[in-house]
Order: sequence, then C-alpha cells, then structure tokens
Amino acid sequence: MKAIVLLSGGIDSTVVLALAKEQGLECHAISFDYGQRHRVELKSAAAIAAFYQISHRTILVDPSCFSGPALNSSLTSKTEVPQNRTEKEMSSGSIPNTYVPARNTLFMAYAAGQAEVYNAQEIHFGPNVMDYHAYPDCRPEYFRAYQALINLATKQAVEGSAPRIVTPLIQWDKTEIIKKGLELKAPMHLTWSCYNPLAIHPCERCDACLLRSSGFHGVGVRDPSLKTNS
Amino acid sequence: MKAIVLLSGGIDSTVVLALAKEQGLECHAISFDYGQRHRVELKSAAAIAAFYQISHRTILVDPSCFSGPALNSSLTSKTEVPQNRTEKEMSSGSIPNTYVPARNTLFMAYAAGQAEVYNAQEIHFGPNVMDYHAYPDCRPEYFRAYQALINLATKQAVEGSAPRIVTPLIQWDKTEIIKKGLELKAPMHLTWSCYNPLAIHPCERCDACLLRSSGFHGVGVRDPSLKTNS
Repeated sequence: MKAIVLLSGGIDSTVVLALAKEQGLECHAISFDYGQRHRVELKSAAAIAAFYQISHRTILVDPSCFSGPALNSSLTSKTEVPQNRTEKEMSSGSIPNTYVPARNTLFMAYAAGQAEVYNAQEIHFGPNVMDYHAYPDCRPEYFRAYQALINLATKQAVEGSAPRIVTPLIQWDKTEIIKKGLELKAPMHLTWSCYNPLAIHPCERCDACLLRSSGFHGVGVRDPSLKTNS
Repeated sequence: MKAIVLLSGGIDSTVVLALAKEQGLECHAISFDYGQRHRVELKSAAAIAAFYQISHRTILVDPSCFSGPALNSSLTSKTEVPQNRTEKEMSSGSIPNTYVPARNTLFMAYAAGQAEVYNAQEIHFGPNVMDYHAYPDCRPEYFRAYQALINLATKQAVEGSAPRIVTPLIQWDKTEIIKKGLELKAPMHLTWSCYNPLAIHPCERCDACLLRSSGFHGVGVRDPSLKTNS
C-alpha cells in the first residue's frame, strides 16, 4: 500500500515516516518550500528521505501568499517568533504569530493531489497534542472535516478510493513521540526543529526547540543534535 | 465587504466578478499559473482585473504536482484535450482528461489563505451546472464540505469570521451566464475559454469553446471574440 507522507524535517514527521515504514508502506514524502525562514529544515527532510531511501518531492509554494494587509506569519516575515514561552503559555489556546494562513489546508490539498498522481491510499501527517492547542488546522475535528472533503473532492473519491488521512501522533506529546522514534531507530540526529533560522540548533528559546528539549528531557535521553558540552 | 474572487480569465469567473462588483464588494482577484497549456488565459484575467480596477495576484503553482505515474491531466501534459464532444457526452458523468488532480481543492486553499491576509468575508468561485456533471470538485456537495472545513481551518474561523464560499453560477448553464454577463456589461470581449492554446480563439472544438459557442447561440448574440466573417 502507498502513502503520501508530509515530511517537514522535524521530529514529528520523521516519527510519522518511521511508523509508516514499520507498517511496510511504500512511502512518498513531500516537503514544502513556502518561504519559511527556517527553510534549512528542508535539508533535514531530504536527508531523512534519503535515510529511508524513499521518493521525496519538495513543492515550491509562492511565499507572497502568506502575507497581506490583515495578517502575516512570523515564519515567513521579519516578525520575531515567540521566545522563552512556557508550555502553559503554548497551550493556552491563543494562536501564536507562527500561524501561517491556511497553511495546512494548502499542504493537505497538495497531498490529495499527490495521492492521485501516485494512486496512494493514505496521507500521513504529524500534528501532535501541543500543535492542536495552538493551531486550528491541527485539531482532530479539522482532519475529520478534511477527510469528509477528500471523500468528495477527487477522481479517486469518485472511483471509491479516496485516500485516508492518518494522523498517528495527534494525541501524543513530545516525550511519547521521541520515545517511539528512538524505539523505531528513526534518524533523530538528522532532524531540525528550530524556528530561528540562524541559531545554533536547537536554539532552546523558540516554541519548537523548547518542546524538543522538554521531550528529550522527558525520555531521559540526550538530544543527538546537541553537539557541544558532551 | 471584501471578497476573494477566483478569476481564470474565462466567461464564468468574469461574470462572477461582475456580480460581485454589482453588489459593491471590494474584490481581490486571484489567478493561478499552474502550468496549464492554455496559460494565455492569464493575460485575459489580468485584462479583466484591470477593466474593473481591482487588485489581482497570479499565484504560481508548481506544475510537477499535477502529474505522476498514476494520473496526468491534458491541461498540463501533452495528452490531447477532448475534441468535438456533444453536450450529452460532456454531461455523461464520466471525468474527462481535462481533470487536474485536486486542483480546486488547492485553489480554494489558496483562496482561504488570501481571505485571511486581506480579512475578506467571502470567497467567490464560478463553477456552473455543466462543470459539476464532469468534475467532482465542482459539485454543490463539494463546496458544502469545503465550507465545513473552512469553518474550522483558519484563524478567521476561530475568531468567528470564517469566509463564506459563494458559487453564484452553480445551477446556471452557459446561456444564463452569458445573458447575465451581457446585462452587467461584463467585458466578454476580454475573456478566453479555449483549452487548445495555439488555436485561433475560440477553436470551437474543445469542450470549453463548444460550450461557449452554444451559450452565445442560446442568447442569440455574436461572440465578440469571433473576429472573422463579421
């Protein structure tokens, strides 16, 4: 069975890929170059796809789509990303400035198209429990609505083979994700989390690095991307 | 009130724009350069936006996304588009090779993002009754499912202002659309319908030109893009 796997280059999507590979799926990874300032993550995505020896397509998305008079994202503009927030702040329910307008709706649409051109039966995506406290397009009900849309949207759907959206991490926190990744021998050393593109990775200040750090701390394992003070 | 209007450069989207302008909406037009072989339509889209003096953004979509081992589209590959089909054949319910994988799902996702960056309250899109016999992503139930998704997907949705999807032509045939366009003095002379990019427009063989021709015939008006034999 074939699956389209959305691969950002971070820990979550890497573990999603590791889980899909463990199930014996033929995986086709897709990544997005959408003008994210931390597009260095795409090098990680390519390295992870190469590690698993799977096909990998980086889709170019016009970054001008994510900014306008009413809304910008700190991931694609010069606004500073939030720094040194506590997990309580991150899960308060307010949407941080790292929100990118309709981003996952767009990514999932590309994935639906890729499912058709590869005749894949599943689309694997890695939002986790912390993501869905922050981002509307990471919530379980959002993916249920997307599934309902995909069941109507495509030629595959008309032929009775609409792809199934699979979000294996949606109830998992970072500790559980890292634990599973280590168990599956996922290439954690190749992953990139940081939103601060020019920082030494991990910066340990942005939300992504703080959650990463907390996850490794929770498992009691040293982050392999920490290169100094070993 | 602001609206995002999907503007291909054809008659339908031009009439959608004319209707939105008549309502006094502040319109922001978006078009897509997705490697369609008839991308000459984008010149028409630009001319129509200029006619109405509205903002217009052409979004570049990586054309490699629409082809793969299991499916291609004749709009983005060298496969010939259907020629000389009757309207009965066009409305038989089978999906023609002009179907582009998940295309409208992608276009609507971009529109949802544009609605956020402009703080627009509506998204206007122009599928008609003939489209939805042919394409799954033109059917009323598809747009209802997309509305349900958008009601959950974005920051606007969380703030209680998810944009409304408006498809004013969805029960109209080409004759009704052209009649309304003429009534609203829409710039029909600037529109482009043809799928055969190198043809003298209209080619009067592809589905799009045949429906255009039938529509003008139904109204009893000469197509202003017919330049010869006048």
